[in-house]
Amino acid sequence: MSIITLTTDFGLKDPFAGMMKGVIYNINSNVKIVDISHGIGNQDIIEGAFVIGHSYGYFPKNTIHVVVVDPGVGSRRRPVLVTASGHYFIGPDNGVLSVVIAGDTGSRVFVITAEQYFLRSVGATFQGRDVFAPVAAWLAKGGEPHHFGREISDYASIEIPKPIKDSDSMKGEVIYIDRFGNLITNITYRDLEDMQKMDVPASSPSVRICGIEMTGIKRYYAEAEGDETAPIINSFGLLEIYRYIGDASKALNAGKGDAIEVQYGS
Amino acid sequence: MSIITLTTDFGLKDPFAGMMKGVIYNINSNVKIVDISHGIGNQDIIEGAFVIGHSYGYFPKNTIHVVVVDPGVGSRRRPVLVTASGHYFIGPDNGVLSVVIAGDTGSRVFVITAEQYFLRSVGATFQGRDVFAPVAAWLAKGGEPHHFGREISDYASIEIPKPIKDSDSMKGEVIYIDRFGNLITNITYRDLEDMQKMDVPASSPSVRICGIEMTGIKRYYAEAEGDETAPIINSFGLLEIYRYIGDASKALNAGKGDAIEVQYGS
Amino acid sequence: MSIITLTTDFGLKDPFAGMMKGVIYNINSNVKIVDISHGIGNQDIIEGAFVIGHSYGYFPKNTIHVVVVDPGVGSRRRPVLVTASGHYFIGPDNGVLSVVIAGDTGSRVFVITAEQYFLRSVGATFQGRDVFAPVAAWLAKGGEPHHFGREISDYASIEIPKPIKDSDSMKGEVIYIDRFGNLITNITYRDLEDMQKMDVPASSPSVRICGIEMTGIKRYYAEAEGDETAPIINSFGLLEIYRYIGDASKALNAGKGDAIEVQYGS
Repeated sequence: MSIITLTTDFGLKDPFAGMMKGVIYNINSNVKIVDISHGIGNQDIIEGAFVIGHSYGYFPKNTIHVVVVDPGVGSRRRPVLVTASGHYFIGPDNGVLSVVIAGDTGSRVFVITAEQYFLRSVGATFQGRDVFAPVAAWLAKGGEPHHFGREISDYASIEIPKPIKDSDSMKGEVIYIDRFGNLITNITYRDLEDMQKMDVPASSPSVRICGIEMTGIKRYYAEAEGDETAPIINSFGLLEIYRYIGDASKALNAGKGDAIEVQYGS
Repeated sequence: MSIITLTTDFGLKDPFAGMMKGVIYNINSNVKIVDISHGIGNQDIIEGAFVIGHSYGYFPKNTIHVVVVDPGVGSRRRPVLVTASGHYFIGPDNGVLSVVIAGDTGSRVFVITAEQYFLRSVGATFQGRDVFAPVAAWLAKGGEPHHFGREISDYASIEIPKPIKDSDSMKGEVIYIDRFGNLITNITYRDLEDMQKMDVPASSPSVRICGIEMTGIKRYYAEAEGDETAPIINSFGLLEIYRYIGDASKALNAGKGDAIEVQYGS
Repeated sequence: MSIITLTTDFGLKDPFAGMMKGVIYNINSNVKIVDISHGIGNQDIIEGAFVIGHSYGYFPKNTIHVVVVDPGVGSRRRPVLVTASGHYFIGPDNGVLSVVIAGDTGSRVFVITAEQYFLRSVGATFQGRDVFAPVAAWLAKGGEPHHFGREISDYASIEIPKPIKDSDSMKGEVIYIDRFGNLITNITYRDLEDMQKMDVPASSPSVRICGIEMTGIKRYYAEAEGDETAPIINSFGLLEIYRYIGDASKALNAGKGDAIEVQYGS
């Protein structure tokens, strides 16, 4: 039994995600459908790319991940099907699948053109329901990627900002804020290791963000005391600024894109 | 394997929807349960009727749709089981199933009285958990509608407001606002076609709402520019007022019930 | 096919619950996963204990309930597996399982130490994903509790406040506020019965909360009129203060911990 996951900016009030599930089961009842998130920021392609990029690896190989964050729906923007890292991904060709494509040198991208699989509807295209959901259901039923369209190489790509490294310091930025108000940055565990100066968590870099400076990296949340703001390597393997009690985002008045700097030595 | 869908105003903080799923699986583990929405406005029967009416058709025939939006729970208001358009519906007899009943001239409505299927509980009736969920589970197990009670014809009915048509114009209203702030009206794609003056989307009616006037109907969201507010036929097949970037509901300070007028010719 | 339920404070924006489902299906695809709630108040152990304690009984015996509300994650706080009332529970040893442990004199608690079942990850421990999810999946695959660690008796326990009873009165408090703004108290249906003075709902105790006094207990929500605030025995079997139209919590400016008093006689 195949698994199909959904990652969208639809929210949960409206019946849009439910409709997609209906369409899938109508074609193929032999699947499990899992919601990864319907709370991606409205039309926030980078957030969608971040969330699916950090989530898909926890699912079994051959899982089909449908991602719908799509400001350009209905325009010339194409639907695509991607194979990467042993998983399938279906979504708009707007960069939201950039992270998963870039994560495997053997990635392949197919433009979805086989309209015989689409649901016919009046009105503004709801591609999640009319294209992505049925293609996912048919793919799970034994379809091959090339059944849905030809392979392409001119797919859209967006840059997830990467940290800028110096000999003894690194500048990154906040790329995601979770529901606890934790500030998740683009500095990875490996970036810190690569600096060769750090033996996580023994060494004590200084970390600056939003005008405050912190020393050392915590190993678990409860190590921070009272209203202390502190850095930690989080469960994504990313450098995160948090408060144990409270909300670091509110406390620092911080948002996505805010700069963070890590410095080693004196 | 049968599908049971849930549409309620329970929200997602409380465990009410989860309890219903437990009750269903306790009786019949051979079903799939799909959430259509738990975000129906608190006790908003018309919104519930709208959402289930536009969603059920995407599910396979014989799906069982449980709808719980029920200001009158525990009073003399009766639980009912409806067969319509090849689907089953279970909910309160308060009009929330009006749209699905009216959508099929062969609809049948049964009052649910077979208490042997109910869960016994102390306290104020939670019919979703104690009546609708077990009846859905037993129905999916092979029950026939008449096993649960006798057919009735005096069921409750509510009017979803319909547009008022003139020779060259039509007056409707906003009936639903989605999470993107799109204003969804009760004017359908067919209403516009019926005016015989329009070849969607070629012709250019003028559309007035909340003191603004727009000309022409967009084919896809990205056609609107900047902070333009524009009409579109949406994925429900309904006339919708939207902003590509931003939230039309906030921009126009518009709400459910607000009037919209469509006019053809000069 | 086993059922695994999830009760967490993760919210639904972030992909954390989705990741746990991926981990579970990766180990054992032969389970059904049901969300009880991901809306437990941030790190609110008592609310988590309340919700799982009132929900698990609606699920089939042998269901595995994973509860993740865990301010102390990553510290010395231990993960535990509990057997109680014919169900399994997996979560942190911080008291969030107190209600289910206390509800069965035959409860057994095992500390989870069998690291061979854990997911290896870098960064701050996400025990929901790395410990609880895989242990639940392996348990559903036929594991026995003692496979995951030794039985313990020094597990953490928290007190859910109990009402204080006098000869003709009882003092309790608000312990949960649901999404409708209903004030759910710790006074149970049995507490009221035990006073031997009441034949629910015939008798008419007076109920005081937040400076208002009400007489009599409603049998169903629609019995309250207009903006009346009234008590009812709710679907948890608990005394609840509600408004039929409106939100009692806002109307009374009431919160968790607020005192309630029930008095019989004159």
